[in-house]
Amino acid sequence: MQKSEEEKYGVRKLQISDKGKGFIDLLQQLSVCDSVSDKEFEDRFRDLAALGDDHVISVIEDEASGRIVATGSVFIEKKFLRNCGKVGHIEDVVVDSTVQGKQLGKRIVNFLTEHARSVGCYKVILDCSVDNKAFYEKCGFQQKSVQMAMYFA
Amino acid sequence: MQKSEEEKYGVRKLQISDKGKGFIDLLQQLSVCDSVSDKEFEDRFRDLAALGDDHVISVIEDEASGRIVATGSVFIEKKFLRNCGKVGHIEDVVVDSTVQGKQLGKRIVNFLTEHARSVGCYKVILDCSVDNKAFYEKCGFQQKSVQMAMYFA
Repeated sequence: MQKSEEEKYGVRKLQISDKGKGFIDLLQQLSVCDSVSDKEFEDRFRDLAALGDDHVISVIEDEASGRIVATGSVFIEKKFLRNCGKVGHIEDVVVDSTVQGKQLGKRIVNFLTEHARSVGCYKVILDCSVDNKAFYEKCGFQQKSVQMAMYFA
Repeated sequence: MQKSEEEKYGVRKLQISDKGKGFIDLLQQLSVCDSVSDKEFEDRFRDLAALGDDHVISVIEDEASGRIVATGSVFIEKKFLRNCGKVGHIEDVVVDSTVQGKQLGKRIVNFLTEHARSVGCYKVILDCSVDNKAFYEKCGFQQKSVQMAMYFA
């Protein structure tokens, strides 16, 4: 019996062995990420793992190729506002350009959103380009405001 | 000799005693924050203090009244992207409605921005309403993208 798309492309948390499966190459499709040593990767992995449920990176591994083909992260911000409320921030969602159209992005976003809900966040937010707005609307998001940025030299 | 505005309204980090100086009342001018017990405040304060430089809440205390009249926070997100880069996220900036026009908001934002820069962030970002965009442009920010949100029931 053939495996379903969901079985072939299951969502799971990032593992330390995923650097060897193209995780960093995948991030390069989103922004600069061209020199991360094994040591730097492992140090950052442990920093983030120490945050437990307050920081989750999800990935989809293509069973056939053994490559990481989609990822996205969520971190949980603890506030005083909203009666000591919590907010999930989704970041760095990317799907490999060779496997687009299989709803992998939506599955990653749903996984992160459900994580935020499960730990008691009152909302989950993210920033995206105007081009990606329709995708996030399909995932259940609505535009709320604008994102401002300052880059350091 | 009269004190300058900067002396009267210096920026410092939040202290656990600031709940008694109207810190929570100030947050209520931004969004719902109507029932935070002393115990909840202290627990959240300690959670956040444990993050060290990765989470800073700044406040301005009015020397004359002993009240907290401005606040804003920044937390530092650690990424794999951008070669294990770091991003500062500014949140929950509010100035007491009775002391507007004294550039307290700008001073809070500068404090948070400089913190992000000092710990090695490559950028600092925030979300704001279209109405507040001009204020953040004066602080050195530029619009980058749109913010999407999903609220949980």
